[in-house]
Amino acid sequence: MSELKGAAIFGQSGGPTAVINASAAGVFQEALKQGSITAVYGAAHGIKGILEEKFYDMSKEDPYELELLKTTPSSALGSVRYKLKKAEDDETDYQRILEVFKKHNIRYFFYNGGNDSMDTCNKVSKYMQQAGYECRVMGVPKTIDNDLWGTDHCPGYGSAAKYIATSIMEVYQDARVYDQGQITILEIMGRNAGWLTASAALATNAGCGPDLIYLPELPFNVDKFVAEVNAVYEKQKNVIVAVSEGIKDQDGRYISEYGADLAYKDSFGHVQLGGLASTLVNILREKIDAKIRGIEFSLLQRCAAHLGSRTDVNEAVLAGQMAVKYAVEGKTDYMVAFERAPGSGYKCEIKLVNLSEVANKEKKVPREWINEAGNGMKQPFIDYALPLIQGESSPPLENSLPRFTKLKKVLALEPATIK
Amino acid sequence: MSELKGAAIFGQSGGPTAVINASAAGVFQEALKQGSITAVYGAAHGIKGILEEKFYDMSKEDPYELELLKTTPSSALGSVRYKLKKAEDDETDYQRILEVFKKHNIRYFFYNGGNDSMDTCNKVSKYMQQAGYECRVMGVPKTIDNDLWGTDHCPGYGSAAKYIATSIMEVYQDARVYDQGQITILEIMGRNAGWLTASAALATNAGCGPDLIYLPELPFNVDKFVAEVNAVYEKQKNVIVAVSEGIKDQDGRYISEYGADLAYKDSFGHVQLGGLASTLVNILREKIDAKIRGIEFSLLQRCAAHLGSRTDVNEAVLAGQMAVKYAVEGKTDYMVAFERAPGSGYKCEIKLVNLSEVANKEKKVPREWINEAGNGMKQPFIDYALPLIQGESSPPLENSLPRFTKLKKVLALEPATIK
Repeated sequence: MSELKGAAIFGQSGGPTAVINASAAGVFQEALKQGSITAVYGAAHGIKGILEEKFYDMSKEDPYELELLKTTPSSALGSVRYKLKKAEDDETDYQRILEVFKKHNIRYFFYNGGNDSMDTCNKVSKYMQQAGYECRVMGVPKTIDNDLWGTDHCPGYGSAAKYIATSIMEVYQDARVYDQGQITILEIMGRNAGWLTASAALATNAGCGPDLIYLPELPFNVDKFVAEVNAVYEKQKNVIVAVSEGIKDQDGRYISEYGADLAYKDSFGHVQLGGLASTLVNILREKIDAKIRGIEFSLLQRCAAHLGSRTDVNEAVLAGQMAVKYAVEGKTDYMVAFERAPGSGYKCEIKLVNLSEVANKEKKVPREWINEAGNGMKQPFIDYALPLIQGESSPPLENSLPRFTKLKKVLALEPATIK
Repeated sequence: MSELKGAAIFGQSGGPTAVINASAAGVFQEALKQGSITAVYGAAHGIKGILEEKFYDMSKEDPYELELLKTTPSSALGSVRYKLKKAEDDETDYQRILEVFKKHNIRYFFYNGGNDSMDTCNKVSKYMQQAGYECRVMGVPKTIDNDLWGTDHCPGYGSAAKYIATSIMEVYQDARVYDQGQITILEIMGRNAGWLTASAALATNAGCGPDLIYLPELPFNVDKFVAEVNAVYEKQKNVIVAVSEGIKDQDGRYISEYGADLAYKDSFGHVQLGGLASTLVNILREKIDAKIRGIEFSLLQRCAAHLGSRTDVNEAVLAGQMAVKYAVEGKTDYMVAFERAPGSGYKCEIKLVNLSEVANKEKKVPREWINEAGNGMKQPFIDYALPLIQGESSPPLENSLPRFTKLKKVLALEPATIK
């Protein structure tokens, strides 16, 4: 394919992970090296930054600060949750994107995110093709949820899994110091796919983990849950349970909504739930007279760069680099994906997956990796997940605290000149 | 003072910290070296293990496992919350302790804990003296709350403070990725003393911390709080607030109890509060139409050995070692304490404080270290706390997960022979 000269733009989308910025570093460092890429932009708040013509000139950044992106969690350029309408229904956004791309001669569009972001990539790419504007579009995967279709795993998952497994091993030490027993409920992220909750099994595999693990892949039965917790409690007094925030009953109702009877409506009319952990704690307290504690890992599990997986960080950087290399070589309309090489040791290779195949699909934890009783993980999951958390990554320290990147964020256009 | 030959026993008491086992390592390693100490025991669940004659023979442990205590959080021997009655009121427990001490020729008693544990030490020591039984008693300080009187700071605090500051710096990155703004409420441990919550200011000092910090040292006014949060929100859209779980209003009522109207009573009649963070989130939602999120650091803040302060771990070990050395030299009835050496660099020296002076007193954060408005920390606090989090400590890893100690816990007496 012929050389395509033009500017490149990169955007971050969706929820934070520990390594989304590592992919940004991969994209920026590689793009700045490529002769055919005439300018390297970072979009403020993803697709919104393109629509609003608000993006940064990454060539103005100190190379050291770009390097620090590899160990700075979350989205340094700002993220967005913005779903483009179908072009058939409303072309406004697409026309605007085309206008901005033309104005800045943007010929490379890299977008980092999950299912929705791959859908955005795909829609933008299709529109540009129909408009006859040559632009190479590559998706870079990222999600702690690990539910992207077409890839062995997603950057972001390994670091979150490592944080969850390590933290549970520590909580395990903490939760059994008294001799009167305790039930501890750990609420872990993941609305539809249980990959993160399953990573709690890595702690169990290391000898300090949950006794029971419940994923959203299987319907959750409250009576069965109470009976299973009680059985472990009767036997060993200390019980640790890991549950996915997304568990639902047989009728598809979120268990976290069971707390709605106790919920609180604010003056704006929003119902405020207490969270799944506290709902389950309250359910158990009705049935078992024990010390029962709920812990929600909350944001901490997705932004803990101080406990990153080196494998995950390296792969996130590689995904960004390869997206640029492939685009420069002429590839377009793909998401960069990972494929596990056959053989005993862990080795992952990069492959390309069509955006249209990835968009809006979800990859769940296979049923055969969950135990028969539906309350724990089997060995194939451990074999799958353990390689993904290997190696240590943490930010450089100043005064023993993280030194995160400090981007200058020089706007490519003066605000006054933005249309 | 003359040499005192006999066995030594060590117990752990109160809530877990990241370094309570580091002090245990200091005690055990030093005691095993001392010629005048004829046996080294570890009490199961603190004073209860003595009363029940359930303690472990530490000479039977692998030295490597004892070394691993330095990076294993919580209380490896088990902890206890047990307050001895006054001997004047009920001598039963004291008589039993004396009996056990005599039976095993225990002449050294080391107890690791906070205020209550120092009180236990003091009571046991006084009773032994009155009974004419020679026994040297030393308290080893520990509490994440840092509220022990008579010492510059407490082992356990530095590591918890480092975890809190680091985690907040990460949450700071996460909580500002979207451009619509967010208010994040962080609930931090500390019922009566605000040292831990104050450590959030270390993150602010590093450029990524809370805008507002509320300690239990000052009465908490809900209207003032809402106004202050709103003012920051109006100005910069993203607001991070750190609050101590122990904040109370002017009448001494816990703010967390304000949620009691929304609280849930279980079938055993216990009122279940939603926690302070969710109470404050609900209060703010009544007044400000913004995205508002509460995060409770929960147990994670006190057991995160993977992010320990090397200074803290070293001092915890030293406190244990010095307790043994001083006792062997003839000292008794003291708590090992820290005194900051004058001069510019941080240097801490060991001193001894009378147990009777320490018992049941609390050290609060000085008013002059809190800003005028009562919603932030001043430089003297940073100067105090920053040295305590310096240096990194983490457990050795196996498969990139922590390898905690695996003590054999060989009972000194066969259960069948226990009276």
